Amino acid sequence: MIMKRKKISVIGGGFTGATTAFLLAQKELGDIVLLDIPQMENPTKGKALDMFEASPVQGFDANIIGTSNYEDTQNSDIVVITAGIARKPGMSREDLVQTNQSIMKSVTKEIVKYSPECIIIVLSNPVDAMTYTVYKESGFEKSRVIGQSGVLDTARFRSFIAMELNLSVKDITGFVLGGHGDDMVPLTRYSYAGGIPLETLIPKDRLDEIIDRTRKGGAEIVNLLGNGSAYYAPAASLTEMCEGIIKDQRRILPTVAYLEGEYGYHDIYLGVPTIVGANGIEKVIQLELTEEEKKQLNKSVDSVKNVLTVLT
Amino acid sequence: MIMKRKKISVIGGGFTGATTAFLLAQKELGDIVLLDIPQMENPTKGKALDMFEASPVQGFDANIIGTSNYEDTQNSDIVVITAGIARKPGMSREDLVQTNQSIMKSVTKEIVKYSPECIIIVLSNPVDAMTYTVYKESGFEKSRVIGQSGVLDTARFRSFIAMELNLSVKDITGFVLGGHGDDMVPLTRYSYAGGIPLETLIPKDRLDEIIDRTRKGGAEIVNLLGNGSAYYAPAASLTEMCEGIIKDQRRILPTVAYLEGEYGYHDIYLGVPTIVGANGIEKVIQLELTEEEKKQLNKSVDSVKNVLTVLT
Amino acid sequence: MIMKRKKISVIGGGFTGATTAFLLAQKELGDIVLLDIPQMENPTKGKALDMFEASPVQGFDANIIGTSNYEDTQNSDIVVITAGIARKPGMSREDLVQTNQSIMKSVTKEIVKYSPECIIIVLSNPVDAMTYTVYKESGFEKSRVIGQSGVLDTARFRSFIAMELNLSVKDITGFVLGGHGDDMVPLTRYSYAGGIPLETLIPKDRLDEIIDRTRKGGAEIVNLLGNGSAYYAPAASLTEMCEGIIKDQRRILPTVAYLEGEYGYHDIYLGVPTIVGANGIEKVIQLELTEEEKKQLNKSVDSVKNVLTVLT
Amino acid sequence: MIMKRKKISVIGGGFTGATTAFLLAQKELGDIVLLDIPQMENPTKGKALDMFEASPVQGFDANIIGTSNYEDTQNSDIVVITAGIARKPGMSREDLVQTNQSIMKSVTKEIVKYSPECIIIVLSNPVDAMTYTVYKESGFEKSRVIGQSGVLDTARFRSFIAMELNLSVKDITGFVLGGHGDDMVPLTRYSYAGGIPLETLIPKDRLDEIIDRTRKGGAEIVNLLGNGSAYYAPAASLTEMCEGIIKDQRRILPTVAYLEGEYGYHDIYLGVPTIVGANGIEKVIQLELTEEEKKQLNKSVDSVKNVLTVLT
Repeated sequence: MIMKRKKISVIGGGFTGATTAFLLAQKELGDIVLLDIPQMENPTKGKALDMFEASPVQGFDANIIGTSNYEDTQNSDIVVITAGIARKPGMSREDLVQTNQSIMKSVTKEIVKYSPECIIIVLSNPVDAMTYTVYKESGFEKSRVIGQSGVLDTARFRSFIAMELNLSVKDITGFVLGGHGDDMVPLTRYSYAGGIPLETLIPKDRLDEIIDRTRKGGAEIVNLLGNGSAYYAPAASLTEMCEGIIKDQRRILPTVAYLEGEYGYHDIYLGVPTIVGANGIEKVIQLELTEEEKKQLNKSVDSVKNVLTVLT
Repeated sequence: MIMKRKKISVIGGGFTGATTAFLLAQKELGDIVLLDIPQMENPTKGKALDMFEASPVQGFDANIIGTSNYEDTQNSDIVVITAGIARKPGMSREDLVQTNQSIMKSVTKEIVKYSPECIIIVLSNPVDAMTYTVYKESGFEKSRVIGQSGVLDTARFRSFIAMELNLSVKDITGFVLGGHGDDMVPLTRYSYAGGIPLETLIPKDRLDEIIDRTRKGGAEIVNLLGNGSAYYAPAASLTEMCEGIIKDQRRILPTVAYLEGEYGYHDIYLGVPTIVGANGIEKVIQLELTEEEKKQLNKSVDSVKNVLTVLT
Repeated sequence: MIMKRKKISVIGGGFTGATTAFLLAQKELGDIVLLDIPQMENPTKGKALDMFEASPVQGFDANIIGTSNYEDTQNSDIVVITAGIARKPGMSREDLVQTNQSIMKSVTKEIVKYSPECIIIVLSNPVDAMTYTVYKESGFEKSRVIGQSGVLDTARFRSFIAMELNLSVKDITGFVLGGHGDDMVPLTRYSYAGGIPLETLIPKDRLDEIIDRTRKGGAEIVNLLGNGSAYYAPAASLTEMCEGIIKDQRRILPTVAYLEGEYGYHDIYLGVPTIVGANGIEKVIQLELTEEEKKQLNKSVDSVKNVLTVLT
Repeated sequence: MIMKRKKISVIGGGFTGATTAFLLAQKELGDIVLLDIPQMENPTKGKALDMFEASPVQGFDANIIGTSNYEDTQNSDIVVITAGIARKPGMSREDLVQTNQSIMKSVTKEIVKYSPECIIIVLSNPVDAMTYTVYKESGFEKSRVIGQSGVLDTARFRSFIAMELNLSVKDITGFVLGGHGDDMVPLTRYSYAGGIPLETLIPKDRLDEIIDRTRKGGAEIVNLLGNGSAYYAPAASLTEMCEGIIKDQRRILPTVAYLEGEYGYHDIYLGVPTIVGANGIEKVIQLELTEEEKKQLNKSVDSVKNVLTVLT
């Protein structure tokens, strides 16, 4: 009957990590540790303190600390990984993947050392390969290593649809499979406004444009910002996954899950509908796909596998 | 019986402005316009879009747009000014004040042009002088031009006390008068934990240290961040003031208000306890002060007046 | 730029009315007037005061008053009608309808007198006929007179599905057309768990049982309570409709709306999908129905018309 | 790292018990069991089901069951006791106390049997004696048996002050010691509006009237309702105490706590300021009292002891 607060550590104190920490604290999901590398220790402490100073006004109780010391993450219930570099001009895709792989490996070692029973959620890109890396490195059962991509992709899709139809975002749902971004496989037949299939509300060519915008949703923000990438919606997505776990909500959320035969694939992390609860991924939900959807998903899987071959 | 949403515009799309926009939208206080200068139009649009894309996941309905065009702020109910520059190395205090004064003037002209009936909340520093500038420039009645400083100062004080006593931030209250930062006049006899005067719970010298830390609370974050200043707690403070107005809550909040004789001062904007409601500042609350408090407040007023002399 | 609070009056201070008042106040949607007949004035005042005394603890700002005087409802933005009697043993259906019709007429007269610009939401049973009565009596445009039935029916359906699949209620959606209760036309092809059609997740015969339980959902609670009928879920449903209007959310909600040709029907109030916003019912959404669905809806309409013939 | 939901059982399915169950579920504090005697099993199940059916609309995830079987309360984290009878006309105070004492004893036996590690919160009246009874019967350490009275008394006080000053309830605090109702010892010098002592804002005679109204706050509602007693504010008060425990908030709340020398009293349950956290009552806060306050508190203690002598 220990009533003590849950503990969530966020690795990577950049905009996404910091915003995630704040949104988690706002919901009083537990005490929050925001961790970055030693060179960033002071800014990370500064952000954490600034967030804590917002708590009396916003009315939430959560300790929030900034640190560069993994010991402070000890006994976390959930660890969210937002660490990793973004692709820089002139950098090859291989270099990006291998650099982030190496970061994932060292981060995972530390996480496992201090929180051997935690659930890990990975945001770092390319998310399918990075979640795979964390899974292998951690030695955790598959249910405890989860990637984020579909909550964000559908959030963007839902936003664009709400704009298009001038409706509440609350009543729009979306559904995606497969990889993140370009490799996303949208299942528009499972996407609705107030339960009404979008295909009956929006002409096909316009819906295709919206899907295309969704695929490129990350790049759209990158291009607008000029420097850096999206963080509000990614942080909200990570927070929703954490809430589903902490509160054992058994939400149906699209996550990047390890497949062992589901949808015909093996030993791969892929975006699929899952049930998210106290144990992390409680179940992968299998759907009947059309031939066209299967084809698209295959293409997406090829693309993910392609990245996996680059892993060292 | 027009039920249409309130509209709040935030001038300045930096971290504080953007975070304020997000917190306002989260609370569904109205539709949000985030405005910055033309050179920053795209990043501002990018932040606004990213926030909107978080809305389906966080479950709030609010349009959020980024712009550099004041026309988009038309008919705002509240306009929050976070614009202005921070002091740079080698810059004199006069230069800072005059630069920000000039920004306030041009911003205010545009605000008044498009939203002649709005309430303006000013965060820009030095806040007493900048609120004064906006007041004079706007020609608005005094109740509709309000500065922010005390909500943030007390938030920091409450945070430090909660840490010190290991108690919920919800039960700690603080009370300040006068200017922001160094000129802050803390009224510890009006500061409590669960209604119990802090002076009976914390030794005087320790309480003095905490007050000192509060005075320097902004600088503490600046020093930790290394680059930039606090934004979470300032944004939360601005949001609480907006909520008090939009919902006509008649909150007692410490704000920077125009004095016409209250506390013995005239034609000055100063941090005092006020009632905040539908009309902005509904009332300045006058307190009996001790001789020592009067002395400190006088010093604070001198300091504010000193800055006012620099205004052109 | 008047920022004053919205005002919502709830007619009928029984369990449903009182619970609605409380849920509205909790959400700070406006000031609340709870009205009942003069004989019930004191209990109504008692409930309102008790609710207000909960507000410091729950942290919401809303005036809540109990009254039997319609003057107190003056200038309401929304008026919710929960008044009316329940069928008693030995009472004929005609008697019930005519008694409630007479109550609706006198209530509506008072509402219109004091709040000629309000939006009226009707819960009283039989809801289709009572909403029709209020519409005719009020002389309001059709968008401003709305009945509640579908939000509650789908809430029950969603609850049963969440139980059946052991999933979060957040991810279940349901869809109904037509009358309340026995005459409900469920559109299971538009009902989902996490976007996945329920028909693929639950065997048809089991789904039929759940639909049947939904139809009889009101009676199930009546039978369990032994005395009185459901009020938590009805109050939550009314609150959601009010929120959609007050915040101009443009929600897609199933409401009882006046039809002028939609779905082929005229001069009738019927449960259909609608867009709910600042103007009340912003639009009736028309769907293609299957032959079977049309047949069921026709039956439902016949049943509603049957009741209308009883109106005096 | 078990993430499973907390479990809170509420004993007594009357208005207060049911409303408490609903408010706890709304806050997603855990799964809820509402228990009443076997004769009330069906109504209790009906209320629980009705609440659950509100959850999809209100957007909370919590299982809520109604039962008359204590087995269903197994492994509760918190058990709230609202059971007990109200004084009936012609009933002596002794009869009331002894009847409720007997109910407390049998209820406590069952609670302890199924949830030996839970924290118990008692609302039943007279609360000081009933909490004492539960403490003795349970054999629990004192920190795990807590009575409710001060949160409700101060809530009423705060409401009346907010009305008097036309201010937000959020900024009013109150402070009471001693017994519930007539025996309440108000510490107005520790009661504030926005941190400003009420004594400086409200004339003494008016403040005395408000204190008197607070003392009789329960009776005021009873008289208005005509039948039954307050339940919204009591339920909100119980919910706040549960939240403080479940989230380990370390709130400063006035609770009915067991004294072992604090304030000079021994072996008695009395209303005092306490820190409420994961372990229940983490600490009794001792205050310096004035002679007048001591006298009043003594009188309150005498009154509580008087009731204790009636216990069998």
